[in-house]
Amino acid sequence: MSILIKNVIHSFKNEKIDVFVDKGKIKKIGKNLDIQADKVIDGTDKILYPALANMHTHAAMVLFKGYADDLKLMEWLQTKIWPIESKLTEEDVYWGTKFACLEMIKTGTTLFNDMYWHFDACFQAVEEMGMRAILNAVMIDMFDIERQKFNEKRTLEIFDKYYEKNPLIKVGLGPHAVYTVSDKGLRFAAELRKEKDTYLHIHLSETLTEVEECVKKTGKRPPEYLDELGVLTDKTLLAHCIWLNPKEINLLAERNSIAIHTPISNMKLAVGGIMPKKELREKGVRICLGTDGAASNNNLDMTEEMKVAAILQKWRNNDAEIPNAYDVVYRATEGFRILGLNVNKLEEGDTADFILLKMHETITPLHNPISNFVYAASGILTDTVVCNGKVLMENGHIKGEEEIKENFFKVINRLFA
Amino acid sequence: MSILIKNVIHSFKNEKIDVFVDKGKIKKIGKNLDIQADKVIDGTDKILYPALANMHTHAAMVLFKGYADDLKLMEWLQTKIWPIESKLTEEDVYWGTKFACLEMIKTGTTLFNDMYWHFDACFQAVEEMGMRAILNAVMIDMFDIERQKFNEKRTLEIFDKYYEKNPLIKVGLGPHAVYTVSDKGLRFAAELRKEKDTYLHIHLSETLTEVEECVKKTGKRPPEYLDELGVLTDKTLLAHCIWLNPKEINLLAERNSIAIHTPISNMKLAVGGIMPKKELREKGVRICLGTDGAASNNNLDMTEEMKVAAILQKWRNNDAEIPNAYDVVYRATEGFRILGLNVNKLEEGDTADFILLKMHETITPLHNPISNFVYAASGILTDTVVCNGKVLMENGHIKGEEEIKENFFKVINRLFA
Repeated sequence: MSILIKNVIHSFKNEKIDVFVDKGKIKKIGKNLDIQADKVIDGTDKILYPALANMHTHAAMVLFKGYADDLKLMEWLQTKIWPIESKLTEEDVYWGTKFACLEMIKTGTTLFNDMYWHFDACFQAVEEMGMRAILNAVMIDMFDIERQKFNEKRTLEIFDKYYEKNPLIKVGLGPHAVYTVSDKGLRFAAELRKEKDTYLHIHLSETLTEVEECVKKTGKRPPEYLDELGVLTDKTLLAHCIWLNPKEINLLAERNSIAIHTPISNMKLAVGGIMPKKELREKGVRICLGTDGAASNNNLDMTEEMKVAAILQKWRNNDAEIPNAYDVVYRATEGFRILGLNVNKLEEGDTADFILLKMHETITPLHNPISNFVYAASGILTDTVVCNGKVLMENGHIKGEEEIKENFFKVINRLFA
Repeated sequence: MSILIKNVIHSFKNEKIDVFVDKGKIKKIGKNLDIQADKVIDGTDKILYPALANMHTHAAMVLFKGYADDLKLMEWLQTKIWPIESKLTEEDVYWGTKFACLEMIKTGTTLFNDMYWHFDACFQAVEEMGMRAILNAVMIDMFDIERQKFNEKRTLEIFDKYYEKNPLIKVGLGPHAVYTVSDKGLRFAAELRKEKDTYLHIHLSETLTEVEECVKKTGKRPPEYLDELGVLTDKTLLAHCIWLNPKEINLLAERNSIAIHTPISNMKLAVGGIMPKKELREKGVRICLGTDGAASNNNLDMTEEMKVAAILQKWRNNDAEIPNAYDVVYRATEGFRILGLNVNKLEEGDTADFILLKMHETITPLHNPISNFVYAASGILTDTVVCNGKVLMENGHIKGEEEIKENFFKVINRLFA
């Protein structure tokens, strides 16, 4: 399917142009393009931005948005999240994930990196929504050998069934964290990752307690411990990365692992530290951005995440210059490059994952559309979403969204009855 | 004018009800109200929230949104903001302020506390928009006696002309800061404030440099110095309040002055510190919330400010419980109480300043609408705005907005040609 977008403001060029898309790529950009296309979109009063990549989520947790805020972490988990999670069925997760995809598309995201229970439901939901994702088979064994064996079996089944099923969906490994997965479990995940040459997604050094307990138990801090087990590679995605020392930053750089910045969740859960983004960048560590689940954010709007990431790091660096808006957009689209996709500046040849935002008082005037994207925009202004050259949303509407909402609310009503 | 809103979800009650408004107040709340009203609004699929009070702005700076981001403070001011500000005419500020009002109404704010040049233009703009405001006559003399004399004359003219002109617009004093106004100027402002029993709006202890230079020059840190000049009273609004020590917190509490939290601007400009909100509250200091101008935020969306205020303070306190969402909404509506208006929980008898947000994936499910307001909402979801019992916006549209936008863009094109 080919698409011609007429008269849209190109955010990186800050001028009105036409964009022609074919076979999943931006083929041509120019004034008054005269090309036949299967679909023509009027870009008047809209701004063209790259689509965003949300690189740390637990999508179906939208079910719990606002259910248990303003609580200390352990109280939150033990009295609220775990009891309700234990009731979740495959169907609940299916509708939860569909709804999360709806929220992500509506706020400009076409790729996400997920970790949640009921893999089959997640996969089906994402596939039906037409999004890109890395879906990671979650593993938690709490150091129980039986549970670990079960996880291995289940993970192998997932790989058998889904590994090559859909080119937009990568199947990866999701060992939860050093405090929830045994060394056997971590080693298994590392080995299967290597065998399949796929991704591994894990929480790393989010709280000081995690670091201290890891030292007590293994004699090593989390990065060194994970490295010993073969977990740190150039396809390892590390969520949070708060409590890192210079030696650990060097280690991540040497392994070419990827750090995921999740500033809103970290602040809301009061983890105390801030990701040392500047130091990670100075050593060349790749960094991407994620919202975390909607129980700790509480939305999946990556434009909000960009702003908070920018201002938190400026504040931490004591320097209003670092990072700048262009760098932040780079982080918010880094997920595409991690997958080998080129979405650099919406140039000819780039992968066609992009969005159109409606003009609105909050993002005008247009002195600098990139600045406005990071510091002024809300994802809710998203009008049109294109993923892999296909239209996922047009005029703010997604095909079948009414049914998704209806079923999502049925799940909510039953779960919280 | 009376208004009847049917079938709206009341955010504090989390149930569907009708709301009857008359003579600027919420008169009646209940199921299936059968009351004749001049106007009936269908509240289906909308949530009723209090309107927000943006207590620190420089409204017309929307002209510079995105014009000069990612720069160090002094470079930003000297090479970008001051040169362009020096070109501003009365008419530019008029259209800039109108546009800022548009942005504020569209994101749910009905009251703001402002400080900017060209008072006549600001006053006319706000009056025409039907909003509430405290407009403070800005004074900067840079320790020049002639300029200070001019400021006195100009300020007295403003009070003569506008002081009792519009019950929704309070006229206050806006001496800029200790580093831009002479002791004579500050004393004049304090005395006129007392004589008129009105408000005084000043920047306080935003950067460490400000504090250190004040000590070097006056022998005192800013709060003590201002107190000596009679500036600190129960109608004094202090923007930023970052670098406060315990003695200064006690002083603000004793004077019953009001601290304005502006977390986004503080982080973006890299001021290094964080307002000690918890300590201020423990001593009983009133705290409200503000966005600052759109050159340092870069939008005027108070829902975003609520979220950043909440997560920044949780993170600083190392406690996910403090503040909670209810407290943050209290801060974001404290401006009304400062004016003696009752907007506590949208109860019968409360002043009718409220908004309706459209349902959207980002603010559903509705486990707790107040949590969603703070942690999940975007002001862009605002559908209807009522200020002092009058409808300022309906179905996302404000009367005359097209003309405002057209003229605003003319100003932009001329200023930046």
